[in-house]
Amino acid sequence: MHVDGVQLIGKDQQRGSQSAIQAVNPATGDTLEPEWAGSSQDDVKRACQLADEALDTYRETSLEARASFLETIAEEIERLGDALIERAMAESGLPEARLTGERGRTCNQLRLFARVVRDGEWLDVRIDPAQPERTPMPRVDLRQRSIALGPVAIFGASNFPLAFSVAGGDTASALAAGCPVIVKAHNAHPGTSELVGKAIQKAVARCNLPEGVFSLLYDADTAIGKALVTHPSIKAAGFTGSRNGGMTLWQLAQNRPEPIPFYAEMSSINPVFLLGNALEQRTQALAEGFVNSLNMGAGQFCTSPGLVIAREGEALNRFIDAAASALKALPSHTMLTPGIHDAYEQGVARLAAHSQVRSVARADSNDQPNACRPQLFSTDAQAVIADNTLQEEVFGACSLIVACSSDEEVRDVARALEGQLTVTLHMDEGDQQAAGQLLPILERRAGRLLANGWPTGVEVSDAMVHGGPFPSTSDSRTTSVGTGAIERFLRPVCYQDIPEPLQPEALKAGNPLSLKRLVDGQREA
Amino acid sequence: MHVDGVQLIGKDQQRGSQSAIQAVNPATGDTLEPEWAGSSQDDVKRACQLADEALDTYRETSLEARASFLETIAEEIERLGDALIERAMAESGLPEARLTGERGRTCNQLRLFARVVRDGEWLDVRIDPAQPERTPMPRVDLRQRSIALGPVAIFGASNFPLAFSVAGGDTASALAAGCPVIVKAHNAHPGTSELVGKAIQKAVARCNLPEGVFSLLYDADTAIGKALVTHPSIKAAGFTGSRNGGMTLWQLAQNRPEPIPFYAEMSSINPVFLLGNALEQRTQALAEGFVNSLNMGAGQFCTSPGLVIAREGEALNRFIDAAASALKALPSHTMLTPGIHDAYEQGVARLAAHSQVRSVARADSNDQPNACRPQLFSTDAQAVIADNTLQEEVFGACSLIVACSSDEEVRDVARALEGQLTVTLHMDEGDQQAAGQLLPILERRAGRLLANGWPTGVEVSDAMVHGGPFPSTSDSRTTSVGTGAIERFLRPVCYQDIPEPLQPEALKAGNPLSLKRLVDGQREA
Repeated sequence: MHVDGVQLIGKDQQRGSQSAIQAVNPATGDTLEPEWAGSSQDDVKRACQLADEALDTYRETSLEARASFLETIAEEIERLGDALIERAMAESGLPEARLTGERGRTCNQLRLFARVVRDGEWLDVRIDPAQPERTPMPRVDLRQRSIALGPVAIFGASNFPLAFSVAGGDTASALAAGCPVIVKAHNAHPGTSELVGKAIQKAVARCNLPEGVFSLLYDADTAIGKALVTHPSIKAAGFTGSRNGGMTLWQLAQNRPEPIPFYAEMSSINPVFLLGNALEQRTQALAEGFVNSLNMGAGQFCTSPGLVIAREGEALNRFIDAAASALKALPSHTMLTPGIHDAYEQGVARLAAHSQVRSVARADSNDQPNACRPQLFSTDAQAVIADNTLQEEVFGACSLIVACSSDEEVRDVARALEGQLTVTLHMDEGDQQAAGQLLPILERRAGRLLANGWPTGVEVSDAMVHGGPFPSTSDSRTTSVGTGAIERFLRPVCYQDIPEPLQPEALKAGNPLSLKRLVDGQREA
Repeated sequence: MHVDGVQLIGKDQQRGSQSAIQAVNPATGDTLEPEWAGSSQDDVKRACQLADEALDTYRETSLEARASFLETIAEEIERLGDALIERAMAESGLPEARLTGERGRTCNQLRLFARVVRDGEWLDVRIDPAQPERTPMPRVDLRQRSIALGPVAIFGASNFPLAFSVAGGDTASALAAGCPVIVKAHNAHPGTSELVGKAIQKAVARCNLPEGVFSLLYDADTAIGKALVTHPSIKAAGFTGSRNGGMTLWQLAQNRPEPIPFYAEMSSINPVFLLGNALEQRTQALAEGFVNSLNMGAGQFCTSPGLVIAREGEALNRFIDAAASALKALPSHTMLTPGIHDAYEQGVARLAAHSQVRSVARADSNDQPNACRPQLFSTDAQAVIADNTLQEEVFGACSLIVACSSDEEVRDVARALEGQLTVTLHMDEGDQQAAGQLLPILERRAGRLLANGWPTGVEVSDAMVHGGPFPSTSDSRTTSVGTGAIERFLRPVCYQDIPEPLQPEALKAGNPLSLKRLVDGQREA
């Protein structure tokens, strides 16, 4: 499979007409061929029109047909074989094993959503049968199901060129919900995007679906993203990236004549609390676990541990020393793009210049282009409580250790935290009381609470929440990873006394889809 | 039970300190005693602080305790007896039977949410047990439940002084979700609000809940509403009212440093399609049913039928004649407030002055203050398609009949519709094909589709959707009536490897709450 430098609009593959982008291999600095000319405003209109035309057919596909489509996409991605991994490696600087694993996750999550579609719980069927004899007023027949919101715009993420990009979690959940998808490719991996896009395009054709179910656009600038988010046919959008980028698009989505849900996953520093007994008894292991989590993927994970909170004292000093040693021994990873590397260095410099922040350790340079040199800082609780900028995410392997004078001050830092994707507690049995006092505070500030692990590594499953209060996301009521993500793209519709021939299959008498429906307040078996 | 002109902040009852409001009996024009001095910015702060302090206790009440609290509120409202109905009649001009019925609905919906709370489905519990042996990576233990968003601000609606006001649907669903509630009383019925507020206050005390679970504020202007929506402790808001009012508050909610969900139910003209056979065969009955639905509550329902669409011809002419006759014979109802009456007259005048709109009939005046004189207009399809202002809601008994030249033009009008709470089809068996062609179009534009009934009259049940695409609401993913409303005030949290003693009850091994949990992808019985 070649990359041809084309955008994909419905079943067409064609070059764009606007300023071009090219990928850069961050490990070498080399520019990669070919170039992708950017999409035009007319391309946006055509993709949106096709998506709109596809909607009514696609959202009424049978559960089996839709599930099978998701599985076909996974198959087609796997059929891309080594070409996909090689291109993704060249475009991202990520190692082969990571990308092979990420491909597995991408295909697994498509198949997981196929299971979700078949189960049909997402339809949220509720039936209140008519009660013609009820007094003082008879009850009409009421039947509810969820339907697709409409065409969805998805923005590929830089840091997961497969699992959170063209056929990533947002796309999988939107397609599962019955929404046609238009992806704006991330400029860091245009070739990877094209390959995966073509796999989806093939799956659309193999499954005889309307071509508008999927399109893929490119842009050297931000015009196409803005045009997508403000197009009247687009009824929701998914984004993973920076807080600035997310909020700019979010504002546009809110200021449309018809505002739409805009799901932005933006920034999180994933605080880690080291409680007294655990810190005392597992100092070395915690230090090593921490720096490994910090350096994973050069710290370019949404869940990278950017803040460590503990009581000051001898144990914390040992932890800091051990972490500093371990950090200096870390391998240096190539960052995803020169731009991300620059922003990382600026973020490190910003913290280094802060009067209340001390540098603990920095890894050496390996003299490769765009290499990430992990950085550890320390400060005290009052500094973090007083200055919100110390909570600003530095995307990359950079973390700040916060020394607190008391358990109460630990809780004060917890109360001062902004919304987070994750918060971690390291605790032993003797720490349960302290942990119990922290949990209600932390629950209000995070989507995932974890004990005795590291936040990096996100399971794709039913119980995962990858979301959280602002600014970690723009909408804490949802998750972008895991099966709950399908709910972002649905809305309920009630059918009152609609004659049975016109009722959607899911609502008909006799339960032809064998769903677990809520009938008269009782759940069907 | 007296009305004392007091605001309720936690367990306190005290006069406000700002400009006062007094209710007006719209049926007589008389000003009613006492006056309510408005709440201050400090009152907002205190109510928010109490709500914030109450949150952690209240959101962790047992299912039984919370359900029992909702039932206690219903009991306390019933114990207000005739005093409540009398005050509500004086403040709203609504007849006794309507208010007695509305009190029944208010208490029933509190009890319905008690059932929902006990069932525990709202917890949305999902458990993915650890798989330590899984390769290549072990799976951690993941447990998800939903928790309360936080304190919620609720704006009482003018047109349901009981069922959508202080203890109405928004309050019931927010309290059911575990959110403390601060209500801004509607100025049209301050005494009714105080009485119901005191009933809730008593229930809080009887159930030994923290006082901050409920507060009730008053304001002669908009400052208190704005202060509530922008207070950092408030994490969501519910509003039922005008599009202007709703969007103003919605904008404030979106432009906070931390944006919050703002559920505004704003405007809907509830189109009614009269399909060929039904119109031909049931002309007279449809005309009578229509004008009765239109005049119900003086047209002051969110679901009042403000647009009627049919093919032109002899049958439509007969329908128009019959509707005109029936309209003139309608009783004249008192509108809720002088302000609403003025706005209604202005809305009627606006349509009357439109060059493409003809007046069909208007009911006579009964010479009472604030009497609603139902008005019927007609126009043609192209006028509605060309001019969006013809879709602007006129709150009150006013409707526009749209004559279409063909079935295709009927569908063109359907395509031109803004988002609606309801769309109605009148159809006989011979109309099924036409109805089937309309349904996919209408589904994209409404929250509730009904056949052969009238949109006024909203059942409070599991399958009800009282919501819909913008501008009928600000968030089509939800409903404000029915048990689904609880979901507006919840967000998911995932607990990863949290030791069992610290796990919430709902997530523990052995399923102590007997919930139907999703465990490893399977629903527990």
